[in-house]
Amino acid sequence: MLHISALEKLVHELSRLPGIGPKTAQRLAYFILKSEAEFPAKLSEALMRVRAEVHECPRCFNFTDQDLCRYCEDPSRADDSLCVVEEPADIIRIESSGAFRGRYHVLHGAISPLEGIGPQDLKIQELLTRVNDGLEGNGPAIKEIILALDADLEGDTTILYLAKHLQGKGLKLSRIAHGVPIGSDIDFIDDRTMGRALQNRVEL
Amino acid sequence: MLHISALEKLVHELSRLPGIGPKTAQRLAYFILKSEAEFPAKLSEALMRVRAEVHECPRCFNFTDQDLCRYCEDPSRADDSLCVVEEPADIIRIESSGAFRGRYHVLHGAISPLEGIGPQDLKIQELLTRVNDGLEGNGPAIKEIILALDADLEGDTTILYLAKHLQGKGLKLSRIAHGVPIGSDIDFIDDRTMGRALQNRVEL
Repeated sequence: MLHISALEKLVHELSRLPGIGPKTAQRLAYFILKSEAEFPAKLSEALMRVRAEVHECPRCFNFTDQDLCRYCEDPSRADDSLCVVEEPADIIRIESSGAFRGRYHVLHGAISPLEGIGPQDLKIQELLTRVNDGLEGNGPAIKEIILALDADLEGDTTILYLAKHLQGKGLKLSRIAHGVPIGSDIDFIDDRTMGRALQNRVEL
Repeated sequence: MLHISALEKLVHELSRLPGIGPKTAQRLAYFILKSEAEFPAKLSEALMRVRAEVHECPRCFNFTDQDLCRYCEDPSRADDSLCVVEEPADIIRIESSGAFRGRYHVLHGAISPLEGIGPQDLKIQELLTRVNDGLEGNGPAIKEIILALDADLEGDTTILYLAKHLQGKGLKLSRIAHGVPIGSDIDFIDDRTMGRALQNRVEL
């Protein structure tokens, strides 16, 4: 509809980004056309650099531009506590809460039979190897595993699968709590969350 | 907070786009990291191409990658009717309505004393020259000018300025109508729009 090939191409590429529809992509493209000349060059360079320099940490599979990611590298963190997350971005959420000071393991997704994602598509074998290596003395011993997965069907399925393979190893295994978010009005809580909040009530 | 310089840089550049906050920029950056390898390369190429190939049409100041833009080039469009808009993107909105088949003129903004944008910063002199050339037979004669500017203070100021300079030349000068949008509930219309809709009522 723009009838300008270079502009159409940019709109097309921008609209492949999540949450960016054709209208927003068009608005962004016009912004780029009207921006100072160095902006598209800088953005373009940042795009190329990020793919060239950033890779998965070989231990926990978080993104990093070093040999090991900063959480695996940090000597002040507890080696015996491991938090399992779906995505690297989840680590940032957990870190900003300040409530966890152990190590991480990123699965890069969750089990989803509907989308054809099975355990072999995730970093699950790597997690089990990491745990077993610790038990056999080939690595830091892990005593506690916290599963911080999404509170949806895929997260629940993955938790069931992981629990099956991690139980019986003498580990303390837990999942993060579900309940009413802090600061929210009881009125606005859905039935399932409220059910879970009641079920997991904490004695005072 | 990401502690990965290439990733931080990309988030920083992305968050300079309009409507993209730091959180969205981070989500987009992670998407780019997880996308197929050619996506950032394609997006990067599109960014560079758009600035190299797209420029302003010398007649109407719409964006184009040709000598003249497609609306100036098209022989089937009426030469005597000119629609004045603030931005190239506005042309797409007007075209998709199908209600105008004349030529365009893009001002590239509106007069805004608050932001220090005066008539000399816009393509207003070029518009007056274009109209005068037509009157003097040095170009296509323009008989009607429709001002399709934004319904805000800047748009109104620009309309007043243009009217002062275009009146008395024997042109039919109009602005697009303001009123209740089609399909909208009368309940949700603000006072000024309703005032304008009543004032500009159309006899049946």
